[in-house]
Parts: sequence; C-alpha cells; structure tokens
Amino acid sequence: MNPLSSALLTDLYQLTMLHTYYVRGMGESAVFEFFIRKLPPDRNFMMAAGLEQAIEYLERLRFGPEELEWVAKSGLFSTDFVRHLEALRFTGEVHAMPEGTIFFPNEPILRVIAPMPQAQLVESRLINLVHFETLVATKAARGVLAAPGKVLVDFGLRRAHGGEAGLLAARAAYIAGYTGTATVLAGARFGIPLFGTMAHSFVQAHDDEAQAFIDFARAFPKGTVFLVDTYDTEAAVRKVAALAPQLQRERIAIKGIRLDSGDLVALAKSARCILDDAGLRETTIFASGNLDEYRLRKLLAAGAPIDGFGVGTSLVTSSDAPFLDAVYKLQEYAGRPRRKRSTAKATWPGRKQVFRHRDDFGRFNHDVVSVEGDAQNGEPLLVPVMRNGRRLDAAESLESIRRRAAAQLKQLPERLAPLEAAVAPYRVEIAPALRMLADEVDRTTSEVPALCK
Amino acid sequence: MNPLSSALLTDLYQLTMLHTYYVRGMGESAVFEFFIRKLPPDRNFMMAAGLEQAIEYLERLRFGPEELEWVAKSGLFSTDFVRHLEALRFTGEVHAMPEGTIFFPNEPILRVIAPMPQAQLVESRLINLVHFETLVATKAARGVLAAPGKVLVDFGLRRAHGGEAGLLAARAAYIAGYTGTATVLAGARFGIPLFGTMAHSFVQAHDDEAQAFIDFARAFPKGTVFLVDTYDTEAAVRKVAALAPQLQRERIAIKGIRLDSGDLVALAKSARCILDDAGLRETTIFASGNLDEYRLRKLLAAGAPIDGFGVGTSLVTSSDAPFLDAVYKLQEYAGRPRRKRSTAKATWPGRKQVFRHRDDFGRFNHDVVSVEGDAQNGEPLLVPVMRNGRRLDAAESLESIRRRAAAQLKQLPERLAPLEAAVAPYRVEIAPALRMLADEVDRTTSEVPALCK
Repeated sequence: MNPLSSALLTDLYQLTMLHTYYVRGMGESAVFEFFIRKLPPDRNFMMAAGLEQAIEYLERLRFGPEELEWVAKSGLFSTDFVRHLEALRFTGEVHAMPEGTIFFPNEPILRVIAPMPQAQLVESRLINLVHFETLVATKAARGVLAAPGKVLVDFGLRRAHGGEAGLLAARAAYIAGYTGTATVLAGARFGIPLFGTMAHSFVQAHDDEAQAFIDFARAFPKGTVFLVDTYDTEAAVRKVAALAPQLQRERIAIKGIRLDSGDLVALAKSARCILDDAGLRETTIFASGNLDEYRLRKLLAAGAPIDGFGVGTSLVTSSDAPFLDAVYKLQEYAGRPRRKRSTAKATWPGRKQVFRHRDDFGRFNHDVVSVEGDAQNGEPLLVPVMRNGRRLDAAESLESIRRRAAAQLKQLPERLAPLEAAVAPYRVEIAPALRMLADEVDRTTSEVPALCK
Repeated sequence: MNPLSSALLTDLYQLTMLHTYYVRGMGESAVFEFFIRKLPPDRNFMMAAGLEQAIEYLERLRFGPEELEWVAKSGLFSTDFVRHLEALRFTGEVHAMPEGTIFFPNEPILRVIAPMPQAQLVESRLINLVHFETLVATKAARGVLAAPGKVLVDFGLRRAHGGEAGLLAARAAYIAGYTGTATVLAGARFGIPLFGTMAHSFVQAHDDEAQAFIDFARAFPKGTVFLVDTYDTEAAVRKVAALAPQLQRERIAIKGIRLDSGDLVALAKSARCILDDAGLRETTIFASGNLDEYRLRKLLAAGAPIDGFGVGTSLVTSSDAPFLDAVYKLQEYAGRPRRKRSTAKATWPGRKQVFRHRDDFGRFNHDVVSVEGDAQNGEPLLVPVMRNGRRLDAAESLESIRRRAAAQLKQLPERLAPLEAAVAPYRVEIAPALRMLADEVDRTTSEVPALCK
C-alpha cells in the first residue's frame, strides 16, 4: 500500500469528528480556508505551491478495503459509520491562488466548500501538502533573488524529512526558479531537469584522482563535471587542466568542476585562474556544501567566479524557518459565517477574496482582503479550480507555473526583495465589508468571560 | 506507483557513478559508514532511529519496469547498463546500533559492506530515512526529559514535511518515549497508541458550545476530551462542569479538557479549580499550541497542573535544529581503507566499532571509537543486522525499542540531561589503533598543495 495516498494519513480527531457529524446528521455545507497567520523571521512574502498535489489528493480520496478494515477493528466507531466511510468521496469545490503566486499573511490561498464531514476530513493532509511546498517555494525564491542569473540546483534529498519531502521540495524549488534537481524521481515524475556528477566516494574508490576523472569523463563524454575537493582542491584543478588536451582529443567536453568545501571565494578564484591559463574558459565552476541564500549573496558580493550552486539541506528543510504558521479554518457552516476567537488566534470569518493592486509599473502596491463578491477594484487572486469534486482544468504545466513565479518575483516591490525583513512590510488591508461581517459574527456568538477564585 | 519505494528516489550522481563503475568493472567490496559529524546547538546526545525502514529499503531495492523505462529513455545510459540495473539487488551486509541507542558525533551508527555499486546507490535514501528518524527521536527524547511522567502526544502531521515525515515522526517520537500520536496511519501501521479529540471547527459548526460537547460525548461515551478554548476558555470549562451531572447520568466519562491557546499556566490553574469544585478530580488537563520542550519545562516549573501535552510542529520539524550533519562516507574499497581529507570534513578511515564504557552505577562514562576487531574493553554498540542482503532477525518490536530508549535515557550522565549544551560534553575517544590507520592512509595518498598565481 502507498501510505501517501491512504485516507488514514490524517489525524484521529478528523475521524472522531466525522463520526459525531454522522451520528448527528450534520452534513451541511462548510467553508474552510487555508492561510498563513504570520511571516516567519526574515521573510517579506510567501510563494504559493502544492495546489496540484492538493487537487490530486481530493480527487482520489477514498477509504479502501485496508483502511476500512482498520476503522472497523479499531473499536472506536460503529458499523454504520464504516459503511458511510466506504461511500465517502470529495464532492466539493475549491478556489485557490494559482501556484507560483506571491501572497502575504492572512490571505487565504485555498478555500474548500463541501459537506462538513468531507471538508473537515481533508484538513490534515491538505495542510501537510500545501504548507510544505509553499515553505520550500518561499525559501527557494530567496535563493533566486540572491543569485540572479546563476544555475541553482536542489541537492536536498538526503537531508529532506522523508522521501515525499525530497520529491516535493524539488518541485517547489523548480517552481520558484531553481534550474533543476539531483533527485531522479523528480525528473522522472515531473520532468524537472536533472543534475549530477560524482561523490567523494567515487574519487576515493580510485587509487588515483586523475584516473577517477578520466573514467568518469569516458562514461559521460557529452559533458562532465569533476568534483575537485576530495584531497587538495587546487591540485585537483591542476590535474583537470593537465587532462584537458587528452580529453579534447577524445572529444570529451570538460563542462565544469565542483567545489564542495573550504574557502569557496579563494578556491573559485584560484580554480578560474588555473582553468583560464589552460584555455578552459568555457569550463564552469559549480559550488556546493552547506550553502543557503545568505552565503550565495556573500560569495557573489566577494566576487567569487562561481557559475552555479547546489543547495541542499537549507533549501529542503527551510532551515532558518522550518515551518509556516499555516492553518485551515472554518469560515462558514450551514450558510452562517463562523469565527474562532481564541487568544492571539482570532480569524476573519466568511468566504474571502484577495484583491491585488499594482502601481503604474505593474509592481504590487497593496492587497485588500474582503468578503467574496465585494465590489473591489484590483485583481482577484483566488480562482475556481474544482467543482463537484473534479478539477476544472487539466493540471497546469510546471513551465507555466514557473513563468508565473518569475513574473511575480519581478513585480515584487523592490523593498521586499532583500533577504532581511523590510522596514515597511507589504500592506494588506482588511476591507470594511469584512470588518462588518466579523462584528456581526461576534454579536451573535458573544460569551462573557469569568474567573475562578 | 508508490514513490517511496521507487529505486529512482535517489540522486542522479548515484546512477552516473554506477554507470561508470559498470563500464570500468569496479565491483569490489566497499565499506560505507553513516555518522553525524557534530551535535546541533543545544543538543548533548542523539538517539538512533530509522534502522527498520533502512533494512526494509535494502531488502526491497530493485529497478522495476517503470524505473527501467525511465533510465532507458533518459538518454544518459547504455542499454547494457539498463539490463545490469534490472538484475541489481542489495546483497551486502549491515551492522548498526539498535534503534533507541544514544550516540554521539563521529560514531558510526550504521555500516554497509557491499559491492561498490550497491553500497553507493543506496546512499541517498539511507541517509534520508535514518537522518530524519534520528533527528525526531533526538528531539522527542528532549521532551521526555523535560516533562517526566507526563503524557506526550505527537500532533505534528499537518506541519510535517510531507506525508512520510508525518508517519515516521510518529514512530521516532514513540521510540523516544512519547505516549502516542494523532496520526491514524501511524497507529494502523505501527500499532502506536492514538489520541484525538475535536477541532475548533467542530465547536464552531455548532450554534452552541455546550451542545457541541454533548454531541461529542454521546458519540464517544467511553471517555471524551473537550476542547475548551474556541471562544472563552474559562466559560467553556464552566460549561463542562455544568454538564457533568447530566453526562454522569448517561454514564459518559469526562476524561479531560484540552487548552490550545492563551496563558496556559493561569488557564490550567483556573480550569483545575473549576473542575475540582465540580467534583471532576479525575478529569485531566491536556495542553497544546506551539509547544516545545522549553515551554514544557517552563509550564511545569510554573506549577501548571497539566497532565499531558500535544506537541506538533516543533517535534516533527525539530524546529530549533531541523537537520543533523549526517553523512554516509566511504571507509574502505577493495580491502584498502579510504579517507576524505576535504577542509573541515576529514573522516576517520576503515571499519569502526564504538565501545561504550559505564561507571559503577551503569551510567555512560565515555565511548571509544576504534577499528573493528580492536581488543577494547567496553560494550561494542554496532551489531550485525543484515547478511547477504537479508535481515538476520525479525523486525524488533517498537515496544522493545522503546524500552531500550527509556533505559538509555536513564543511563545518560546527569550533566547531559538538561536542554542546553553541557559545559563538559560527552567524551568520545579515538583509539590509538584508529589514529595509526588514519596516518597510514594519509602516507599512501599524500598530495602536495599548490597555489595559482
């Protein structure tokens, strides 16, 4: 069984609530919205990703024989309820911001409207998918802004949190503008360009470093990249230079070298000089090893002649901010707007739309969050993507999403492009119509606080 | 296709190296070891986990029709190589520390001995699995140390990095001493005790909070936990107290209440007082909401009468240290020890064993890392787990692993139990035999550094 498509990949309370809804016959329509409550430190924006995986999940959701058997045997639920689960499908509608859209706190990026049990059940996995890809797309976009025009490759599979994280991080990074990934399955499944050369172990398995390079070059004559830091980096680059005439006679192109440790500025400069002296001006320098967007910016500011970067752990774990304050909250049930008022966790009620306003140059100026259907100017960002449990359009191509993401990054206000938090954050206004709705909800569900002793 | 069991869930360079080994006929035996180079900030030890998933991966590794088709179509590899991949199985041997073992930097916790192509290919996924579970077990053990005797439940699925992370985090946390998880699939698959109650949306979907409690209690009469912070926490606890006589008449036990926001110390004290006044002394108080081991310690130190905690995001992302410096390095090839000497990334060569020494009270005193077969005192921590590609024993039960982990935490030196880094870290000695081997390797592979211009 594929655990990733199991209906049991959810929280137990979804099932206990479903059971109660079932017993009580509470099947009226519910509206849930997914949004991020606040930006993590050092972030000025977020980039939406993961919608395609969310849609696939909703389309395929069902309790199969194995899942039903577990539910029946768990002793928690009635036999009637098990039969009810067997027939359960997602039949609702979904509105969402297209993947690659830049968004801000308190802006819904996905809305589910469905009978309560369905809309509730899908909470855990929907957050799980959309939160993670959005987290990584947001992190990757920072790398793209820090190293414009450079080749950026996801090297993160090994330190990603499990296999699905490795796979989806490659996708999210590619959306945000990365050039490709080392993860083969991401190439096979999503068509993302693949990059890869050799590991230190390959060099070490040979008694002679130069022989390792020759072996590899002959196996991949179309363009080979040599890892040069296994023993002594500069000595290895000299070996590459010395091998060049022989490899050229064999019509093997030395595409590049990869640095993976040490003082990357000094080593890149030295390597560039050795390669240029040997006439290898077309041979590129690729760097990896504990890199993140801060180091990329620093290396480039120091004039390191590096053409591309492999970024692994920091990207796929979003290591400086490994989570977003992402939630999926009930906004309406049975036609009545709802609101949570827990301390510091209050939400805006009802079905909402985000309207984006631009300046005369097409850059984002500010957003307005209002109730859906409010007569606002500005571009509405949430669009319908599913109805009656079916997607409205074929899956958008990754290339199309990627173009949107690139356009969005160009339209970002300049003050939001640096890696540190802007003094003046992006303006997100709450429209009067939404404030009025919140007041109305509060009036109809007021509670009087009381203290014990 | 289940992406988690795909042979393509690896880095491209594993395949390019394999191809080169194949072309060159380099199939001699290689020895790789998995270890962590250094402790992350605020960690005094690590706890090994993920071995069972690693063994399953190695036992099942094969290129199926879909994977072979991709390799053939990629245009990177020869037809001969595709046939070679079709026959590839893992036939090697594995030594490892049993799951739940506490370990320290530079101590191998897993060793693979296999023909080079096999031992190399499995690097990406082996690290991916063992790194993540070890990361979470280590984080979870800190929670167990901070809140001894308390019920601790993993609530992390939604913010875990993908579905596999949610599933395996539940397992790793349970190993380290967590009481259970909210993730249903982790209960179904691993037999981990499940916990779950209701969400705010459940309360909000009812027009009346007390009616929400009654509905839920009647659906789960054996023991129900009420979420009390949707509107006003103390008012909700009073409602629970007021409902108690009616529910008791219906033979419904009020097992507990859950706080999810606000000043948890004040609210827990107030709730305890309201519940006690109503004679509900057996009703427990459970808390959740952005908790981690530091907050657990603080809440308990402040005297909050909380019986259990739900910990989510901080646990499953190990948010204060979302990765470990985990590597899988070649130690020997074709009978000769190997060593990487990259700046700040040098490794100890050869097959190693870790010997643990204890004090008179059974507590860990120090470890010695030496070459395998060295006549050291102390308990050798690495044991054989696979031979000829097959596991030597049936999978160890989670309960057995959990007992080991609990015993190990008791045997930890007292100075390593606090959440902050100890002034005197645990002592890990490198034995003379291993130092001699490293010197020998260096002598036989010396390189002379050179500078360009």
